[in-house]
Amino acid sequence: MLNASICTIGDEILIGQIVDTNSATIAKELNSVGVKVNKIISVQDDENEIISSIQKCYESSDIIIVTGGLGPTKDDITKKALAKLCKCEQYKYDINQTRLIEDICNKRNIALTKLNRDQALVPACCEVITNKLGTAPGMIFRINENNKNVILFSLPGVPYEMEHMLPAVIETVKNEFKIDSIYHRTLLTFGIPESTLASMIENWEDNLPDEIKLAYLPNPHSGVKLRLSIYGGDLNNNAQLVAKEVAKLKQILGNALYGEGDESLESVLSKYLTYNNKTISLAESCTSGRIASILTSIPGSSVYFKGGIIAYDNSIKMNILNVKEETLNNLGAVSAKCVEEMAENVRKLMKSDFSIATSGIAGPSGGSPDKPVGTVWIAISGPNFLESQMKIFNGNRQNNIERFSAEALNFLRLRLGLQLK
Amino acid sequence: MLNASICTIGDEILIGQIVDTNSATIAKELNSVGVKVNKIISVQDDENEIISSIQKCYESSDIIIVTGGLGPTKDDITKKALAKLCKCEQYKYDINQTRLIEDICNKRNIALTKLNRDQALVPACCEVITNKLGTAPGMIFRINENNKNVILFSLPGVPYEMEHMLPAVIETVKNEFKIDSIYHRTLLTFGIPESTLASMIENWEDNLPDEIKLAYLPNPHSGVKLRLSIYGGDLNNNAQLVAKEVAKLKQILGNALYGEGDESLESVLSKYLTYNNKTISLAESCTSGRIASILTSIPGSSVYFKGGIIAYDNSIKMNILNVKEETLNNLGAVSAKCVEEMAENVRKLMKSDFSIATSGIAGPSGGSPDKPVGTVWIAISGPNFLESQMKIFNGNRQNNIERFSAEALNFLRLRLGLQLK
Repeated sequence: MLNASICTIGDEILIGQIVDTNSATIAKELNSVGVKVNKIISVQDDENEIISSIQKCYESSDIIIVTGGLGPTKDDITKKALAKLCKCEQYKYDINQTRLIEDICNKRNIALTKLNRDQALVPACCEVITNKLGTAPGMIFRINENNKNVILFSLPGVPYEMEHMLPAVIETVKNEFKIDSIYHRTLLTFGIPESTLASMIENWEDNLPDEIKLAYLPNPHSGVKLRLSIYGGDLNNNAQLVAKEVAKLKQILGNALYGEGDESLESVLSKYLTYNNKTISLAESCTSGRIASILTSIPGSSVYFKGGIIAYDNSIKMNILNVKEETLNNLGAVSAKCVEEMAENVRKLMKSDFSIATSGIAGPSGGSPDKPVGTVWIAISGPNFLESQMKIFNGNRQNNIERFSAEALNFLRLRLGLQLK
Repeated sequence: MLNASICTIGDEILIGQIVDTNSATIAKELNSVGVKVNKIISVQDDENEIISSIQKCYESSDIIIVTGGLGPTKDDITKKALAKLCKCEQYKYDINQTRLIEDICNKRNIALTKLNRDQALVPACCEVITNKLGTAPGMIFRINENNKNVILFSLPGVPYEMEHMLPAVIETVKNEFKIDSIYHRTLLTFGIPESTLASMIENWEDNLPDEIKLAYLPNPHSGVKLRLSIYGGDLNNNAQLVAKEVAKLKQILGNALYGEGDESLESVLSKYLTYNNKTISLAESCTSGRIASILTSIPGSSVYFKGGIIAYDNSIKMNILNVKEETLNNLGAVSAKCVEEMAENVRKLMKSDFSIATSGIAGPSGGSPDKPVGTVWIAISGPNFLESQMKIFNGNRQNNIERFSAEALNFLRLRLGLQLK
């Protein structure tokens, strides 16, 4: 099995100013192609530290992925450290990255300073992975140490730049090494806690063929994912073997299974709305635009998403969404009646086929014994239905907003009968 | 200076299933009392890996903090590995933790199995930090290796359990060691690219007193942060020394400096609106609720945030926001006129003091030579102003939306004259 180490560089990680999310992103991608990550290490912007930490990874790694420290400023010294490490301290300008830097500066009306230009300056011995989203190119170094070949990738620390260059890394790894085939299928569930799910499928799990490995990937916002993997062997056979087990799982889990792989609650809804030429609108109070953000994270969502009213203040609920004053006075904004009026009225106002409305208490304050922090009312409305439900969660403010939003999308998904077929 | 290493243990980290947030939490706490974290390492649930990784930290660390691998199941082996590492493989039941485990099982109606009871079983040589929120106690090991004293803390991996035990760790560290002071100030800038910023302050940076360390912490969404640190020495002197340099920076950077420390564009606006008893509303097209999400991430935002219209479809811009049909026909939705009408009308509709409006092309499709993907028009409106500006970015869809949103908040901040005083 191929082994990898990940080394993230930056003082800001070691003083706890930022959480290193890059390691998890990279580890996930490497794992998906069958590369095992056996060490993740974070070190400061210090030449000796960088060099010695990477050297310590040689023995146990075929692949080393380094992120961070590629900015144009003086505290960014990864490039220099790597050049020294690889004994390759001659530099060259990479033509492609130079052009990209010029483009970026032009587009954004930034002066093309020497500092910017020099971002395209790389050790002569490395291969470049161009960075279209930023100025720092990725670099590939091939190292031979004690007759062992190690391939080292250096990527920027800015997560979206790193992520956009990751496919090139994975491609290189796949081409460079003979990697055992790996077959994955990931099924997406929503609404069943991990421990309950585990009990529900315990019997099925106990009878899984030995070659199928099962992993639970819980995520508080998007539900538990179940990943079935087979390492090595014939891809077609593996696909058949896994398909058989997936069929059984569908029987057990029913509509809790909403999709596969890269799908999401919003992509499932997107597919349905696009295919059926239907539209949707939103009336959000406590989720305050979060559901709209999620829906429109899907490219092309303008086809079915008409818009929304964020009715944070009760005056907006009354004056724009026509929620009755007596509803707010008698039952409060966090009530079935209020979200039902919000959902029904936004649907009419925006002339959409469907709508979702939310009203709740995200916290930290605003709770009461009756309606504690974490309470949300959700309504969904369509041509021939208007339904509402209440849920209570116990996260912090941000967490509650995420949960409320995911529950709202799932509520509509279930009502529309969307599940893994 | 006191040095620490953090070692997080768990297969789930190395396969990228979870992001290790514990390290940042611990690093921040240690830093705040002047302990420097020089290495963060994540290793799998493997006895040899755990032992050898910790041993490699001895030389450079006075303090080692280990989290994870303390659960009751077979894959959790940290306790055993630490006992072996410390050559202390005799175990004892900790009375206090035993009682807490009984309490927890009673409260949650969980059977008091042997697995649960054995969570209180610890190597006889360690001191215990009791865990009130879970079954796994924390452990303190004192190690002498080559005449060097190292203190090792083992904490559970569940973040909220770990966090609740962290004060006991900090207390022990403070009592045990004579700690050098550390002084940080972090200044927040927006709107100046890192390389331009570096050029602007190059002269100032070159003349910084030697004891002040400067770090650039760029974030594509919230701007570049500048952190000035002094390790060791007298806290008052350090504060004065840094204050002098901050004063110079303010001269150079002017209104690009918007705050300090944990502040954000939204918190700066929040403070202003709350203090001045003013309200705000939004009309979002391309940012589709993202600005509303950011504004309401601040607890208590309901005091000043009235709500918003997400006008994704042009029909919503016309019918609800009263954007003129001729504006849309002649100039398009991505135009100064359109966002100005949106901003002005939403402010009137929602009876707020201020408003922000956005319309742009987040991508990946929808661009044209005139208005490429990444183009955004932003308008801000207030009692006596209505202004708009265009910006172009070149990120992916999600990133463009983040940039548009941050730029919109910054536009209003500048207009309101909010900057670091």
